[in-house]
Amino acid sequence: MDLINTKIILKKRPDPEINESLFDLVDEKIRDLKENEFLIEVHYLSVDPAMRGWISKVGNYSEPVKINGTMRSLGVGKIIASKNNAFLVDEYVVGWLGWQKYSIVDRNHIQIKVNPNDVPISANLGVLGLNGITAYAGLVDKCKPLKGETVVVTTAAGSVGSAVGQIAKIYGSKTIGLTSTDKKKSICIDDFNFDKVINYNSTKDISSCLKKIAPDGVDCFFDNVGGEQFDHIMENLNIGGRVVICGTIGMQSFPIPNGPRINRTLLVKRAKIEGLLVLDYFDKYSEIYQKLYNWYKEGKLKNKEDISFGLETAPTSLVNILKGTNLGKQLVKV
Amino acid sequence: MDLINTKIILKKRPDPEINESLFDLVDEKIRDLKENEFLIEVHYLSVDPAMRGWISKVGNYSEPVKINGTMRSLGVGKIIASKNNAFLVDEYVVGWLGWQKYSIVDRNHIQIKVNPNDVPISANLGVLGLNGITAYAGLVDKCKPLKGETVVVTTAAGSVGSAVGQIAKIYGSKTIGLTSTDKKKSICIDDFNFDKVINYNSTKDISSCLKKIAPDGVDCFFDNVGGEQFDHIMENLNIGGRVVICGTIGMQSFPIPNGPRINRTLLVKRAKIEGLLVLDYFDKYSEIYQKLYNWYKEGKLKNKEDISFGLETAPTSLVNILKGTNLGKQLVKV
Repeated sequence: MDLINTKIILKKRPDPEINESLFDLVDEKIRDLKENEFLIEVHYLSVDPAMRGWISKVGNYSEPVKINGTMRSLGVGKIIASKNNAFLVDEYVVGWLGWQKYSIVDRNHIQIKVNPNDVPISANLGVLGLNGITAYAGLVDKCKPLKGETVVVTTAAGSVGSAVGQIAKIYGSKTIGLTSTDKKKSICIDDFNFDKVINYNSTKDISSCLKKIAPDGVDCFFDNVGGEQFDHIMENLNIGGRVVICGTIGMQSFPIPNGPRINRTLLVKRAKIEGLLVLDYFDKYSEIYQKLYNWYKEGKLKNKEDISFGLETAPTSLVNILKGTNLGKQLVKV
Repeated sequence: MDLINTKIILKKRPDPEINESLFDLVDEKIRDLKENEFLIEVHYLSVDPAMRGWISKVGNYSEPVKINGTMRSLGVGKIIASKNNAFLVDEYVVGWLGWQKYSIVDRNHIQIKVNPNDVPISANLGVLGLNGITAYAGLVDKCKPLKGETVVVTTAAGSVGSAVGQIAKIYGSKTIGLTSTDKKKSICIDDFNFDKVINYNSTKDISSCLKKIAPDGVDCFFDNVGGEQFDHIMENLNIGGRVVICGTIGMQSFPIPNGPRINRTLLVKRAKIEGLLVLDYFDKYSEIYQKLYNWYKEGKLKNKEDISFGLETAPTSLVNILKGTNLGKQLVKV
């Protein structure tokens, strides 16, 4: 092949700050495809808070990205060459494409094929992608919200949080979101149909505020942040409460910070807390995708995107989502 | 009736210390039975760590014992008078009898009828009673231990802990207990068949010690204490680990103490932690009792008792179990 690929590699690990200097842009000639491989022209790349874990040396649920390795990322793109009969040229796929313009993959890298004429292909990285699957898995499968129950979600304007709020609404729950600015608060209410939203930066006592707007307490709590917001919400948990830990973006990773011990709350409330890793649900990807897709087509599930243009903008986009300055699912248009 | 009852009432609440001065011994004439009531001659009373919660003003899962009210307690005794066709004179029952010599109850106070000629009636308050039911509910129903998995339990020599260890063994798990003295450690190994036992008072670094004796990590963790032992065990939790919080006897109740935040551990390990209240399982009491009874008759489940004699010894027995000086299920022979 004569194509030149451009990719972003991880030069060094955060120590502990995550900034653009950890990454580097590299050009390379694209090698020939081996049997069963196919070549994808990458259209959109996903930028996710989980990347904080992927590049750290501590490692979490998956192997850390290697030093000088291509940055791990989900993406959507078009197959432009193939040595695999199940993946044909001109088909579109979602999968682990990496932060690069072209990606050589096999079927193990691919989650799903998508139709570019049906929904905007970028939506397959948002509410119809990892974020929607995550929201569904944590809320529906783990928390099992009931009609009339109260569901609280942190980072409510974010791509996972907003999907959680919308799905909880579909299940007939009362939805309460926490977010960081009044602008995001408006988005939560206007675009994502939350019943109540707390701007935690302008709220002195989150626990009391929550007690006021949810006097019947919290039945399901989908948490993406940890730390003080977590503590305040836990204080309002009902008997039989279900909590899912999807992220800890509001907490230092290492060393582990201290906070109020929750053992007694769990005991007295007979509550359950569970960690969620969406990768554990990848064998149900198509099944969950179909549900999300139906809701999306019915207008019950909205997708909001914050797109930056050019592969080279990916590291800055990552820095921004970790600061929370994005509005909607952060994508990079390659 | 001409019978005189002696009962122990709660005079005042702990502030925060629990000692004998909180209680008082009172005599009273026994009133006539109303329709559906029956009168029990109490033989044995149970003394449980949960009583710490029952007498506190904060309250937990149940209403606090009222000031000047009879101290709440499970017991076993013989029916000596009855106005209920379903509960006949000379039958033996286990139920909420209270710290007293005679108890007037109705069927709502009763868990089960027992045969005094089959197993020692006191065993119905130990491994065949609340403690066994608690162990079964938390371990089997919530943790679901598998053959070959590693189960860790705190207060391993205690009446719940020792039942957890023995049931885990029945399920083919490797059992590791934590206890406070070498004497209790021997009891755990010799009487309760634990594979490994840690004396946490003589172990400098519990986490490292656990890593050595359970190099494959911890799959199920049944916790009765909270605090530092909890932290050390959580550090060894495996992916997919299941934790049940049955008690927090090693933690201050109020104000809530700080400790390492567990959100990231739960996330990375996709672990589940759940509070257990045995009262939630009382609708399955007979069903679980039958399983425990079968194991007991097969010699797979041993019961160890620490009996004090005389109703008046109950408060001191409570103080002692909170200090952990008892060896086996603490009972009072009335």
